[in-house]
Amino acid sequence: MATTTSDVNELVEPQYVRFDETLVLESSGQLDGYTLAYETYGKLNARGDNALLVCHALSGDHHVAGRYDDSGKTNGWWHLLIGPDKPIDTNKFFVVCSNNIGGCHGSTGPSSINPATDKPYGTDFPLVTVKDWVYTQSKLSDHLGIKQWAAIIGGSLGGMQAMQWSISYPERLRHCIVIASAAKLNAQNIGFNDVARQAIRTDPDFHNGNYYQHHSAPSRGMRVARMIGHITYLSEEIMGQKFGRNLRKKAKFDYEFTPEFEVESYLRYQGDAFIDKFDANTYLLMTKALDYYNPAAETNDDLTKALSPATADFLVVSFSSDWRFSPERSREIVRALQSNKLNVSYAEVSALNGHDSFLLNIDDYTRVMRSYLNRIARESDLNSQAKITSMDEPQHV
Amino acid sequence: MATTTSDVNELVEPQYVRFDETLVLESSGQLDGYTLAYETYGKLNARGDNALLVCHALSGDHHVAGRYDDSGKTNGWWHLLIGPDKPIDTNKFFVVCSNNIGGCHGSTGPSSINPATDKPYGTDFPLVTVKDWVYTQSKLSDHLGIKQWAAIIGGSLGGMQAMQWSISYPERLRHCIVIASAAKLNAQNIGFNDVARQAIRTDPDFHNGNYYQHHSAPSRGMRVARMIGHITYLSEEIMGQKFGRNLRKKAKFDYEFTPEFEVESYLRYQGDAFIDKFDANTYLLMTKALDYYNPAAETNDDLTKALSPATADFLVVSFSSDWRFSPERSREIVRALQSNKLNVSYAEVSALNGHDSFLLNIDDYTRVMRSYLNRIARESDLNSQAKITSMDEPQHV
Repeated sequence: MATTTSDVNELVEPQYVRFDETLVLESSGQLDGYTLAYETYGKLNARGDNALLVCHALSGDHHVAGRYDDSGKTNGWWHLLIGPDKPIDTNKFFVVCSNNIGGCHGSTGPSSINPATDKPYGTDFPLVTVKDWVYTQSKLSDHLGIKQWAAIIGGSLGGMQAMQWSISYPERLRHCIVIASAAKLNAQNIGFNDVARQAIRTDPDFHNGNYYQHHSAPSRGMRVARMIGHITYLSEEIMGQKFGRNLRKKAKFDYEFTPEFEVESYLRYQGDAFIDKFDANTYLLMTKALDYYNPAAETNDDLTKALSPATADFLVVSFSSDWRFSPERSREIVRALQSNKLNVSYAEVSALNGHDSFLLNIDDYTRVMRSYLNRIARESDLNSQAKITSMDEPQHV
Repeated sequence: MATTTSDVNELVEPQYVRFDETLVLESSGQLDGYTLAYETYGKLNARGDNALLVCHALSGDHHVAGRYDDSGKTNGWWHLLIGPDKPIDTNKFFVVCSNNIGGCHGSTGPSSINPATDKPYGTDFPLVTVKDWVYTQSKLSDHLGIKQWAAIIGGSLGGMQAMQWSISYPERLRHCIVIASAAKLNAQNIGFNDVARQAIRTDPDFHNGNYYQHHSAPSRGMRVARMIGHITYLSEEIMGQKFGRNLRKKAKFDYEFTPEFEVESYLRYQGDAFIDKFDANTYLLMTKALDYYNPAAETNDDLTKALSPATADFLVVSFSSDWRFSPERSREIVRALQSNKLNVSYAEVSALNGHDSFLLNIDDYTRVMRSYLNRIARESDLNSQAKITSMDEPQHV
């Protein structure tokens, strides 16, 4: 047997599937067919009951685990948690993650060619919502022959998709794992998103979203948007610990606009690094999907009622220092689920890393995840025992 | 006697004073002379002991109280607190406020004409610090014949100036009132400032700071900077109360990039309104001065030691929901002052309005201010009684 350690990530390749249906979106916009890019890790068992769907967040994609090559730079964005012997153990589970439509890493999005014009969609790409993503993920489930997911898992915007699965397709998941998320954004969240959007949309290189034809991109705006994002992903405490007021490679101030403090260099570096790997129109769409999500909008602000179709068992996880999606936002979800008499486990993890915690290898967090995922694996084995037993029993026709 | 109510603000006019000295700044940059714009309210008494200096914050100026005309749009930025019969009562006190150098409302700043080039300074204007401001304010004090201020008062960046006065010129103030401030910015504060700066400095209309000659201004960057600022001046709670997820003049989403939510309209409006009334280079300088301030940098991070020259009585005020300058930052100042055995009053006001609270008419806050200012006024009267008594006594030569 291969000896897998938690430091080794499997070699993987992205896969693609095309759906030729006309997709009418929640915004009433439509797409004449679409492609989903996805990856899988581990093996679907014969009973097909060990499949986990991971939903990605704002700047994520389908490359959630494994690696593309030996460069050391191509690990999946959640590789700390997903892999052989990791908390989400690909020796036990068949893990799937797809790039959301509207994305920029292989699924149909604003930078894809619009068959109607033979040019990139640009701003002709319609706004997409969490519900739209969940629908397209259900089509991927059909394509993969997965009738019911053992669990659907997501952090942040990904958690909203997991939650929406439990409402839209309750019979298609046994467990729903919602991490560092919320049932809706608050005004402060929307405010930060709109500042990011305004930074991008007022960049002269945005060209009203059709910058592809100008061989340019609104890089200045994206850089600022990402810098704002990074501050909100971290906590005040962890920024204090990591950077404090440390100066950058100097003993005293230069009294210049070049970075004086380490934190300035860090944020600018994060902003610059993002420019080349993410499409601005996708960033805009993703922030809008975050803003729009609010299942209780259809139930007169009653989240319990909104979640009433759900039948899955839930694990809800929040992080003490996450001020973008604070623990209180998770407790709102937990209370609504409890009111619906669902099985809910809730973990509020003490962690300094703010919203980013959900991506990190934090002991209490990974312990919770490992333990809950083991429970799911055991249930699967028990089902399998039950089935084997029943098959061994004499058939009464 | 005139009947003054708290709704009537006095008509005032700005005044100007020119200092022809060569000013060597903390940054080692220098100015060959400078002008200060200032305003005064109330009357200096014969003993000259009823003078209050107000120091302004990031986007403030010398027009702190009163009004310029009857338009209803020219009230000073702190007119809710300063005026006849108001908590800072101009019937009792002679109140002075000057525009900081580097400013854009009359004092010498980046948009002023550089006598060496006959063009606006632009980026040739040197970086200025809290210490530089306090020094120039001391020159204004000399000009006005004020040997000792009854109190020096400031909120936010203004509080840093008040604190620095107590260190640089301890004999020149009897009371120091530091509101919603901190002894130094933390990494998160610096991060938000740098994002604002990057938004401005990467705007193509910034022209490396010399946009005046191009008859342009980095309006897009300023707009984004101000939007970020506004989110951080408010608390999550008050944004929830004021805006929540309320839609803007519509019953359902348009699924467009035009504002869907009221909070988007509000922030964009605040951003747009700021463009025309503030100079981008000044905004950059002010945020840098905030970043640099840290009196304990010279005392091995020992704030108690840094504040050891201070002899004033202190009032320190913080607001429960202020996350930009949280109560804990005020408590750090209070602890250091107490270690120095100074008289310190500390009020932590319960208020929802976040950092903005310091500008507002909040009952508990105005009560604290009125009570403390009355104490100062009484001390002044007692001194006067004492002096009169001693003069009435027979003189023993």
